[in-house]
Amino acid sequence: MNNKVDFFYDFSSPYTFIAHKRIKEIKKNTNIDFLYKPMLLGGLHKLAGITANAFIGHKNDFMIQDCIMVSKKLGINFYFNDKFPINSLYLMRGTLVLEENLLEKYIDIFFESYWQLNLDLSDRKIFEKKLNEIGVDIDKFFKDIENQAIKDKLKEMTNEAFTKKIFGAPSFIHKDKVYWGQDRLDYVIDDISK
Amino acid sequence: MNNKVDFFYDFSSPYTFIAHKRIKEIKKNTNIDFLYKPMLLGGLHKLAGITANAFIGHKNDFMIQDCIMVSKKLGINFYFNDKFPINSLYLMRGTLVLEENLLEKYIDIFFESYWQLNLDLSDRKIFEKKLNEIGVDIDKFFKDIENQAIKDKLKEMTNEAFTKKIFGAPSFIHKDKVYWGQDRLDYVIDDISK
Repeated sequence: MNNKVDFFYDFSSPYTFIAHKRIKEIKKNTNIDFLYKPMLLGGLHKLAGITANAFIGHKNDFMIQDCIMVSKKLGINFYFNDKFPINSLYLMRGTLVLEENLLEKYIDIFFESYWQLNLDLSDRKIFEKKLNEIGVDIDKFFKDIENQAIKDKLKEMTNEAFTKKIFGAPSFIHKDKVYWGQDRLDYVIDDISK
Repeated sequence: MNNKVDFFYDFSSPYTFIAHKRIKEIKKNTNIDFLYKPMLLGGLHKLAGITANAFIGHKNDFMIQDCIMVSKKLGINFYFNDKFPINSLYLMRGTLVLEENLLEKYIDIFFESYWQLNLDLSDRKIFEKKLNEIGVDIDKFFKDIENQAIKDKLKEMTNEAFTKKIFGAPSFIHKDKVYWGQDRLDYVIDDISK
């Protein structure tokens, strides 16, 4: 059975936070293998010719209310970050410079920092405090994310997502089929069970 | 108990067809009162600053596959119309010139014409044949939909939807709260049951 699912994520997306929390629950009860694939959502939107919800008045208002409603129904602790829309560039580059064991903690702590704790991670002090909590070498981290190879790598991964017909977040790919939106996780599970 | 739900629709939207079919099922098992509110989706998108899915390559490809997947799961007979994107102007004006008993048949037959029978309703002969099937006076119909008051009325209803913070289709309003997408029908029902 092919139980592999690529999960395309960017910390700046509230629905992707919800998907991440759901994935953690799903993993407890299934052997589905979610592979986390970082990308820069802003760059992806540009490639796809999409205006982000944040910049469409009514859609933004709906999204805020909808995320609160959906997370409540799913029993997920959620707060819509006051600083939205968020620039996640450094955070996303950060996913490419950490070792596996640290990366898992990093993903958890920064999704939660944005979408539960309402933190302003553009404040360097707050960002560093969180990195410190999980034991990241801060000087090395900030040096590494300025590395040209890392900058290029994130661009490549974003381009690769687009090439695979991804246009938003969260997105999933199972057996070359694209699923968009946390609502579609149920379908991913259905298709794997078939 | 307030069991009233405004349902904002345009025949050109495949997800709205799915919502319409679900509403018909929901009405069998509940006393929810769905009030059908026609609008012109193209006009609404313009007001909201939204590019329709049809014009965003990857999103359009996803939507076609997603509509097929979702309707299959829901047990709804569905075919993605080959002529999409569709100009629904005459059809939507038509909803404003018919009497109640005919309107219900009209809504059913034209949602099905597009999204089950794959008809090209821009072909006047096919359009007239369908109108004939439900007993619409064809000469009167085509005269009435050119009436300036009817043209204005559809614009007004589209503007009104926008004023109520609607930006896409299908949308629902229950107690002044906007729900967007057929996926959100479950939440509408939840909120009414509370």
